[in-house]
Amino acid sequence: MLETMPKTVAASTPPMLLARAAMAQVGCEALLVYNSDPHLSEYLPERWKAREWLSGFPASAGIVALTATRAALFVDSRYLVLAEQAMAGRGIEVHLIGPADWSPYITWLEGHLAPGASVLTDGDVLAVAEHRQLDARLTAAGMELCTDADLFADIWHDRPAVPAKAAWLHAPAQAISSVQEKLARLREAMAAQSASHHFISALDDIAWLTNLRGGDIEHNPFFAAHLLVNRESAILFSPERIFDEAATAALQAAGVCVRPYNEAKAALAGLPEGAAILVDPKRITWGFRAAIPTACRIVEGTSPVTLAKRIKCAAEIDLFRQTMIEDGIALCRFQAEFEDGMARGESWSEWRVHERLTAMRARSPHFRGLSFHTSAAFGANAAIPHYGVARETALPIDRDGLLLIDSGGQYVGGTTDVCRVWAIGQPSAAMIGDATLAMRALIALSSAVFPAGYPGPLLDSIARAPLWAEGLNYFHGTGHGVGSYLGVHELPTLLSGRTVEPGMEYLPGIVTSIEPGVYRKGQWGVRHENIAVVIDAGSSEFGSFARFETLTLCPFDRRCLDIGSLARHEIAWLDAYHAEVRNTLAPRLEGRALQWLLDNTAPMKNG
Amino acid sequence: MLETMPKTVAASTPPMLLARAAMAQVGCEALLVYNSDPHLSEYLPERWKAREWLSGFPASAGIVALTATRAALFVDSRYLVLAEQAMAGRGIEVHLIGPADWSPYITWLEGHLAPGASVLTDGDVLAVAEHRQLDARLTAAGMELCTDADLFADIWHDRPAVPAKAAWLHAPAQAISSVQEKLARLREAMAAQSASHHFISALDDIAWLTNLRGGDIEHNPFFAAHLLVNRESAILFSPERIFDEAATAALQAAGVCVRPYNEAKAALAGLPEGAAILVDPKRITWGFRAAIPTACRIVEGTSPVTLAKRIKCAAEIDLFRQTMIEDGIALCRFQAEFEDGMARGESWSEWRVHERLTAMRARSPHFRGLSFHTSAAFGANAAIPHYGVARETALPIDRDGLLLIDSGGQYVGGTTDVCRVWAIGQPSAAMIGDATLAMRALIALSSAVFPAGYPGPLLDSIARAPLWAEGLNYFHGTGHGVGSYLGVHELPTLLSGRTVEPGMEYLPGIVTSIEPGVYRKGQWGVRHENIAVVIDAGSSEFGSFARFETLTLCPFDRRCLDIGSLARHEIAWLDAYHAEVRNTLAPRLEGRALQWLLDNTAPMKNG
Repeated sequence: MLETMPKTVAASTPPMLLARAAMAQVGCEALLVYNSDPHLSEYLPERWKAREWLSGFPASAGIVALTATRAALFVDSRYLVLAEQAMAGRGIEVHLIGPADWSPYITWLEGHLAPGASVLTDGDVLAVAEHRQLDARLTAAGMELCTDADLFADIWHDRPAVPAKAAWLHAPAQAISSVQEKLARLREAMAAQSASHHFISALDDIAWLTNLRGGDIEHNPFFAAHLLVNRESAILFSPERIFDEAATAALQAAGVCVRPYNEAKAALAGLPEGAAILVDPKRITWGFRAAIPTACRIVEGTSPVTLAKRIKCAAEIDLFRQTMIEDGIALCRFQAEFEDGMARGESWSEWRVHERLTAMRARSPHFRGLSFHTSAAFGANAAIPHYGVARETALPIDRDGLLLIDSGGQYVGGTTDVCRVWAIGQPSAAMIGDATLAMRALIALSSAVFPAGYPGPLLDSIARAPLWAEGLNYFHGTGHGVGSYLGVHELPTLLSGRTVEPGMEYLPGIVTSIEPGVYRKGQWGVRHENIAVVIDAGSSEFGSFARFETLTLCPFDRRCLDIGSLARHEIAWLDAYHAEVRNTLAPRLEGRALQWLLDNTAPMKNG
Repeated sequence: MLETMPKTVAASTPPMLLARAAMAQVGCEALLVYNSDPHLSEYLPERWKAREWLSGFPASAGIVALTATRAALFVDSRYLVLAEQAMAGRGIEVHLIGPADWSPYITWLEGHLAPGASVLTDGDVLAVAEHRQLDARLTAAGMELCTDADLFADIWHDRPAVPAKAAWLHAPAQAISSVQEKLARLREAMAAQSASHHFISALDDIAWLTNLRGGDIEHNPFFAAHLLVNRESAILFSPERIFDEAATAALQAAGVCVRPYNEAKAALAGLPEGAAILVDPKRITWGFRAAIPTACRIVEGTSPVTLAKRIKCAAEIDLFRQTMIEDGIALCRFQAEFEDGMARGESWSEWRVHERLTAMRARSPHFRGLSFHTSAAFGANAAIPHYGVARETALPIDRDGLLLIDSGGQYVGGTTDVCRVWAIGQPSAAMIGDATLAMRALIALSSAVFPAGYPGPLLDSIARAPLWAEGLNYFHGTGHGVGSYLGVHELPTLLSGRTVEPGMEYLPGIVTSIEPGVYRKGQWGVRHENIAVVIDAGSSEFGSFARFETLTLCPFDRRCLDIGSLARHEIAWLDAYHAEVRNTLAPRLEGRALQWLLDNTAPMKNG
């Protein structure tokens, strides 16, 4: 529906002008650009960074709305300052998302467009719930929503292709179940819901189901694909060239055939009459959902793959334990090197911390990369919960205070995510007070018993209560699911939030982070984060109970804790944890790293 | 649409036969009878006990489904045994509601009717959400749902009339705000939602808004009415004769006119085109909602009256405090009399406990009746959370064990609800263990600090954690809102549940019960229940915080507690609570009751 723009004009023209020209050509009055891809990924491949290309704003969240005469960028509070700096002088207004208005871009469109106006957004990267809201509000305002065109297909001339890096077989020793077994279980679940087909766009679900890993997404071992499963076979829509011989053979053995990536939508559109297709409205975009013929029955529900993936079996948990040893060795080696260096008067920056810690992890033969961008945050930087260190802006670690290091690795045996705060010189009493209370929060939840399968959001207040008692709080989740060499944020497993959804049950086998913190804006921040697995805690006439077993193996810096204010059971928990860390890691360390481990895991008893 | 049955036939015919004859006459294959009224009341006036009239089953919950050849009663697990006993030999099957199937009556209809069948239920007593589910499922099964007839209007010949007992002005000294003020606030909230009208069926909302109380409902000082408010005036649909002169004058002064009760639906049907009517889908029945003309705009939302009513102002809370003194005096006097009598070898039954405790409450000039049926439960009866004592079946209190007394009063100044467990002879160590853990749960939540406005369901685990730690739990809510001389269960204020809804915010001014327990089926039960008000707990850079102030004034029986296993802060909480009870009640008691109070509130220190 969009005529191709003459390339000679386009190549040198600013993106906003190109977009407005294209808008005029297709006859829409406004364009809405989300930071999203057809897989609703957390990290976007370059191809779908249209919001960044159009506005120049690089952050991982933010929405642009564009009319013929105005442009606006909408960001949440985390990115407000950054956005105002980046957009200054570019003719793009900056507005805040929430809490006064969670959809200010719709309000903005309502205010700047007349009834009858047409708003274009790419349905292929639009979440179903977002489409529902957008459509309802624009329709109520007498406007029209168009979702069937990707304006950037024609105006973004050097647009990156769909990523097609190599994908490889995640070998059965780590993958535990075969693709055949996983498909059989999926088909049972489909049958229970009377579904003949299931369409999957979520890249972590596809990687898990196919026992394949890839390099298309930063920090996540995923590959770009959609998957259509029916009762007998499955079609993987993905660039064929990315699969090596072993992967191709494994797919064939499981009855999975590979078709070009861009044929997925047509395959949906070609579903036979009477097909009943299961789709997960949170894990499919509007464009793909809308492609399903009306003669098909749509069964909405959380994907059985999403639900199966979150429960790790005993063999997977053993792999996690081995992986935590490798991660723990790297953490100890790094910390010993860092503290020795600081003691010798070396000059360290946040960036060097990131580089050296990454190098220590890379010594493991099973390390495959970081699971997220390291947050090595000194002083006031640690008060920014999502602070990601950058070489150019990294602070020197050159005065008394706290160094917060939140980092994690992708290993063949599992994914890690750990946060500690380290004393630099002499932290203040107030810093130590915050770190101690956050430790009480960590211990409260880490040692809690709860009904097996209890929803994570309903457990959250157990962690927060010790902080609330002192008038403290933190404005991020207490924990998130963690994948087995998959995403470090594996939803729907969540320890926070105000809605309880299917898949949030904390059942034995759930692997989750626990990460309370305290942040003093412009001053300091503390967060203690472990990964834990939910294990059985026995049953009684009141049902089955569960509790957490901490998997992460890394000492806490007790110089940051006011041991005297901890309760006896809290000291006992810390001592037991440190004994476990020591006993597990000591046989695998030597020299300074071993000494550092022994120094930092000795029993405290009563301080 | 239903021809009147000849009365001579009907009067002597069993209700099920009458119903089937009427079903045949109107041409429907099945009848669904809910235990519900047009106000979705907790306690039903006799007029709407059609389920009981039809089936003979008297409990406060349960649904009957009837076809030409089969009949079934559907009850939740609380009533299963009772239902099976009551229905034996009556040709009515009994089925369980949940957890395998929460709508087994729909499944049953699907199984026993053919496509094309018509199912009748009275839309005027059908909750909107229930209608949505019923309609969707029956439509999917190819059946038709009819909701526009009340079959009982014609076949239930001695059916009680709409209740029309006297209603009276709840005088401003207790009512705090005038009806004018409340209507003005409501109209502001309506304007904020662009609503020209608001229709209210909830009897507690109407009683609160009109500052009237009535005697139409057992245990609740409500009167049968609907209310339609527009920008300038309001119409109260209620039997006119029930209002005395003062009430009538007050209504007139506030611009509220009274119309016959049965004109409410017609008034809705007659709303002018373009009217925007606010209705609360949880507090209006399907029949009334469906009466709204399609030319009107329906604004769905929690009623501003429901939201305003739940926040008690300082003067109301002072009235609650005074009321708790009156209730506490009655509780002490009763307990002294009971314990003296037992010591003298008197014969006491659960029923006598109920009678004497009620008599003690009745000595207060402000007492207006019980707020719910007393649960005086000895031994195994206390393991039934909803046990209501009856004269015929009351147990004698004649052996060692625990006596659980859950009771409450309606007073002009407020509504009370208190539960204590009392040692009879020597309770077992296991009983004491349960009572002690439930006490730790009560103290954990009663002393918690939390962000002001935090949703109650998300605070629940703070109470349960101490029980979970020992493999215990209870399967009822931890607390519910309590009205100011209104309902003892005032929703949506709730400390439990898996859905967080508007109106569940625990804000300063919220009055709530806190009532953890432990129940050993067939053995014993413990529950400690206080009423508490949410108060301000100061603010920090992390926001405003709140905590509970306990309002209930009644000692706990420390013979039921293992003081040695309590933590220091728990003993301190109990001692401080008992000091408060003693200091407040002692000046108002004399003789044996005073001595009993002093004996039972002395400091424990370390046991």
